[in-house]
Amino acid sequence: MEVSWEQSVTECINTIYLLFSAYLVFVMQLGFAMLCAGSVRAKNATNIMLTNVVDAVVGSISYYLFGFAFAFGEGPSSSPFVGASFFALTGIPNSNYDYSYFLYQWAFAIAVAGITSGSIAERTQFSAYLVFSFFLSGFVYPIVVHWVWSSSGWLSTSSSEKLFGSGAIDFAGSGVVHLVGAIAGFWGSFIQGPRVGRFDAFGKPVPMRGHNATLVVLGTFLLWFGWFGFNPGSFNKILVPYPNTTDQGNWTAVGRTAVTTTLAGSTAGITTLFGRRLLVGHWDALDVCNGVLGGFVAITSGCAVVEPWAAMVCGFFAAWVLIGLNILSLKLQFDDPLEATQLHGGCGAWGLIFTGLFAKGEFVIQAYDAGSGSVARPYGLLMGGGWGLIGCQLVELLVIVGWVSTTMGPVFYLLHRMHLLRISTDEEVAGLDISSHGGYAYTAHPEEENNSLRYLDYTRLHEQNQS
Amino acid sequence: MEVSWEQSVTECINTIYLLFSAYLVFVMQLGFAMLCAGSVRAKNATNIMLTNVVDAVVGSISYYLFGFAFAFGEGPSSSPFVGASFFALTGIPNSNYDYSYFLYQWAFAIAVAGITSGSIAERTQFSAYLVFSFFLSGFVYPIVVHWVWSSSGWLSTSSSEKLFGSGAIDFAGSGVVHLVGAIAGFWGSFIQGPRVGRFDAFGKPVPMRGHNATLVVLGTFLLWFGWFGFNPGSFNKILVPYPNTTDQGNWTAVGRTAVTTTLAGSTAGITTLFGRRLLVGHWDALDVCNGVLGGFVAITSGCAVVEPWAAMVCGFFAAWVLIGLNILSLKLQFDDPLEATQLHGGCGAWGLIFTGLFAKGEFVIQAYDAGSGSVARPYGLLMGGGWGLIGCQLVELLVIVGWVSTTMGPVFYLLHRMHLLRISTDEEVAGLDISSHGGYAYTAHPEEENNSLRYLDYTRLHEQNQS
Amino acid sequence: MEVSWEQSVTECINTIYLLFSAYLVFVMQLGFAMLCAGSVRAKNATNIMLTNVVDAVVGSISYYLFGFAFAFGEGPSSSPFVGASFFALTGIPNSNYDYSYFLYQWAFAIAVAGITSGSIAERTQFSAYLVFSFFLSGFVYPIVVHWVWSSSGWLSTSSSEKLFGSGAIDFAGSGVVHLVGAIAGFWGSFIQGPRVGRFDAFGKPVPMRGHNATLVVLGTFLLWFGWFGFNPGSFNKILVPYPNTTDQGNWTAVGRTAVTTTLAGSTAGITTLFGRRLLVGHWDALDVCNGVLGGFVAITSGCAVVEPWAAMVCGFFAAWVLIGLNILSLKLQFDDPLEATQLHGGCGAWGLIFTGLFAKGEFVIQAYDAGSGSVARPYGLLMGGGWGLIGCQLVELLVIVGWVSTTMGPVFYLLHRMHLLRISTDEEVAGLDISSHGGYAYTAHPEEENNSLRYLDYTRLHEQNQS
Repeated sequence: MEVSWEQSVTECINTIYLLFSAYLVFVMQLGFAMLCAGSVRAKNATNIMLTNVVDAVVGSISYYLFGFAFAFGEGPSSSPFVGASFFALTGIPNSNYDYSYFLYQWAFAIAVAGITSGSIAERTQFSAYLVFSFFLSGFVYPIVVHWVWSSSGWLSTSSSEKLFGSGAIDFAGSGVVHLVGAIAGFWGSFIQGPRVGRFDAFGKPVPMRGHNATLVVLGTFLLWFGWFGFNPGSFNKILVPYPNTTDQGNWTAVGRTAVTTTLAGSTAGITTLFGRRLLVGHWDALDVCNGVLGGFVAITSGCAVVEPWAAMVCGFFAAWVLIGLNILSLKLQFDDPLEATQLHGGCGAWGLIFTGLFAKGEFVIQAYDAGSGSVARPYGLLMGGGWGLIGCQLVELLVIVGWVSTTMGPVFYLLHRMHLLRISTDEEVAGLDISSHGGYAYTAHPEEENNSLRYLDYTRLHEQNQS
Repeated sequence: MEVSWEQSVTECINTIYLLFSAYLVFVMQLGFAMLCAGSVRAKNATNIMLTNVVDAVVGSISYYLFGFAFAFGEGPSSSPFVGASFFALTGIPNSNYDYSYFLYQWAFAIAVAGITSGSIAERTQFSAYLVFSFFLSGFVYPIVVHWVWSSSGWLSTSSSEKLFGSGAIDFAGSGVVHLVGAIAGFWGSFIQGPRVGRFDAFGKPVPMRGHNATLVVLGTFLLWFGWFGFNPGSFNKILVPYPNTTDQGNWTAVGRTAVTTTLAGSTAGITTLFGRRLLVGHWDALDVCNGVLGGFVAITSGCAVVEPWAAMVCGFFAAWVLIGLNILSLKLQFDDPLEATQLHGGCGAWGLIFTGLFAKGEFVIQAYDAGSGSVARPYGLLMGGGWGLIGCQLVELLVIVGWVSTTMGPVFYLLHRMHLLRISTDEEVAGLDISSHGGYAYTAHPEEENNSLRYLDYTRLHEQNQS
Repeated sequence: MEVSWEQSVTECINTIYLLFSAYLVFVMQLGFAMLCAGSVRAKNATNIMLTNVVDAVVGSISYYLFGFAFAFGEGPSSSPFVGASFFALTGIPNSNYDYSYFLYQWAFAIAVAGITSGSIAERTQFSAYLVFSFFLSGFVYPIVVHWVWSSSGWLSTSSSEKLFGSGAIDFAGSGVVHLVGAIAGFWGSFIQGPRVGRFDAFGKPVPMRGHNATLVVLGTFLLWFGWFGFNPGSFNKILVPYPNTTDQGNWTAVGRTAVTTTLAGSTAGITTLFGRRLLVGHWDALDVCNGVLGGFVAITSGCAVVEPWAAMVCGFFAAWVLIGLNILSLKLQFDDPLEATQLHGGCGAWGLIFTGLFAKGEFVIQAYDAGSGSVARPYGLLMGGGWGLIGCQLVELLVIVGWVSTTMGPVFYLLHRMHLLRISTDEEVAGLDISSHGGYAYTAHPEEENNSLRYLDYTRLHEQNQS
């Protein structure tokens, strides 16, 4: 018994495609770290980067031990609501899942807690971070994955009994990844309250600029790079020819997904550039960066099943969702240092709805039935695909908000009541880096050292003169 | 009717190769952003990074809507001078072009304006930037692409009537990309004049060091990484076996191209290291970075068709071209903050000529005739390949200089006359970030905050003592 | 005579896999540059980054001219101790080695000197650096590669006469790469002595924090990203089906290698996080970064031949090896600014031993006999595989320490005696950037410029008041 040459080639092609996509998704962890670091004040830079590193290392262990099992577990012990096999990769590789699939999913899992950490930046105890991060990426997130992405999930497009005959289309996770992270972040940030000094006595917001715009741009571009793994990579297999075509298959759809992703992010970026120019009167680089990211978050759900022009529609509205929610959150004195709730939550929710409106029938069949025309599925409402899909999208939106709120809300509230959530005001003013991590992220520049010396010299001289 | 297994495999292999190459080319946009940011003064860092982000997002939309159509349009409405189909990707995918090809070309298009933005850094109005960027990447650049790279272009190696029986060999675009961006930048920079204070009353240059060498090194390495997509990726297809060989095909040539690229950049870097050591007396990291990039720019034209040893020749002279032009530009009081004109223009022009001299016949047939020996083509003059190729290379050089000068020159001059090009002296002294973008890229470091506090304490104390 | 379609596909798949892995390994050079820059004081940042750039460009030339020949040379002029063909890539491509293989090996070669440069940072003359870097990456390292990785090497697993019937399993180079670089660094650092002021008059260590934690995190994540090319890429070919399986081949093992790498690094990171928390009392981001890297270094030897759970064991002990050696080196007043000796040396040595203990028989046959069960090999001692493998691992460990010490030790000692190794105390206090490279890496931030102006204003005002 031997592997046939055809199967070897197929496995190799799909593995190369999936593994290198996984590596790109991993780069997003670096992208988040740089974006977060640049968006907070210098005195908290080390803290937030450490949380990003810890997401990756803690997530590796928890996702290996049980997260993957909750998400993709099969067999009699599993249900449409939670998986229960493949703990510690027992039974991997098998005919469904190889190590490369685990690695790809791992890179997604570690991203979720990174989103949340942005919302609660600059004021959270590090031990609270460890608790919620472990709970979120090890339990809350994998359950949602099981519902939507595993073949037996109750919201899955490949379930034997599809909800509304459709199941929810959340191709790379506007809901599963971004909305989950954002709702968790919302509760953490809401329960903690704003940073000290973020709003003055009259409730007016006081600007708290991040300390380094270069890091924000670096992080944004790295996230863009990584999104090429996140969205086009979510086909999992590229060697899937479509019947009834002469030269198309998943490879065509993978390329199209890269294009829709690019166009959605770009349109959102331009819209934000001009929109904010009108609103605040200058060209703001950081707003453009967040706009681009908002477009990516929104298209993540429908990237594989919409036309390029629809992706531009998606990005255009994503920008205004983000702009609007940012204005609203200032009015409500809600303080999310990274705008993560607004960006990943607002644009993520919009992405789910957008897919229900604009998914093209032909592309849905490509992405979910390998291009076979034999199965009729609901698709986008505005494309004439009926109410089945948009119904599922709204259900996914609601159950994610509900599930994450009822699990992560109590976790944050409990930490809050036990005085384990927020640092003291003194620590917050001094900065987390000096209070919890042994020192600031940056030490003086050489010129400053010299300046300090000169300053001391001047002082001494002055004292001598006066005496 | 179904896709055959052989064709599916072929499409998958070529798509994976091209898409991941496109992702690498995209990283060059980040590389440019970091290189530019580090090379300007801190007060303009946000401005230049914003231009890089805007290149990407504006370029996505314009290249999608019409840039790709001008460049690769086919059919009766097209001509050897401009394409006119595939607007907004209508008719894509087809048997010639898939989405992945568009994405790869998009990543090239957004790079061009990035080169130009370096030349006019630190003194240009942001709205002028939007105008020229849109015009350059949406119209001027795609036309040149059509001439040289589309199958129907009048300078193309695959045209039915090849110029001088050859067509120009500009494999990955020393001319098409780098020279185009540099000539545009030259006119912008020349019309604006030098930055305030760049030359003193006696015409002597005053050093204006970039604010952050770390970013320059980061950018250089990221560009190197991206160049592995730019040059070896330009074969577009990797699964092309060469007849009359036992185990060679494009895969061999792709690897060789990565090697020639590496050797040219490295040789240029070493030459610059020692050359500048002799000239200025110290080991200058930033010069080495620019030297490496100059070598890459120069080899970009011939990377696929020269021997590794020839790539070292290419890099050696590229370094001296760059060093010489930098000395000349100081003498002429020409101020290009990124040396983009000298680097992308000078080394790009040298690259075109180098290819005309050193292209190896066998490799030309591999890269342009799929290794089939049946077609005789001119190749490098010094390799015995006659005058046909070097003639075409010189024609490409001249028409690019002419075309970009007659289009971009007037654009910049018009902006200049309408007082839309350059910012005011006051703004220039204050910096673009504070005048146009709402604030500096960096806020104070924590120690500085404390220093400021101590300084205030000292001042107060002092005042009390005196009163 | 033509290349068969089957062979074309095989070559393409293997080339894509190897080339893109090589590109990732190249990113490690950037990762090292950022890690090193962030870990030294600002006044030496340019210097250490320049050494990283120079590694790459000098390594390209020397590895092209003779390094690759020493390492992989074949034929009658070669021996089990040193190769002697393929100088300047003569005879490449051939049936064994294509350009892509050279590029992959080149990316490894340039990494070695980068490790060493960390150990001797902040106090070494640049010209000394050029000498040892050329000698190390052009001669000392390639010889070790020949012993362990070339098919004719005396320690190789594919030699015709395998040492102890086994040969050493150093899959991606815990010993060949990391230990070699570290031993060289040890001698450089030991002969130079500690940085000025690193230990006080009583021998107590004085903290010398790196100047930028953000760069350390950036470098660590980039190294992690690159390690996905380093370890899983070291199979060289992915299209190798295993007999006696239905769907497994190198593609399975490549994915598993990515997983073991991730788990080892993550476990080491967590262990360091909590271990250092207990020891120093705060959560130290930089320690976690070094812990992650220590885990990677350790698993590099056995990544392809151990179970995921064993990788966690590897990482756990790697963390303690690193923590222990760091404490020891402070006691012994050994000063390695990057902890490179401890990290790459200590964890690299542990990695060799770990593989001798935990290598699984089935996986050894996969990685070294293409899954064919016909050849019986020794494997991990604790897995029941006998003493043959652990014996070879210890031999590799000892000969590397011996070979590098007897070659690089005298080089550094000679440079030291000729006063070419260490800079003067004055230069060291001032910083290498200002003394050797024409200026600091950073120039003032805009606010500081303004502060300086205000300060001058204050001073002037004060003087006027007093007069």
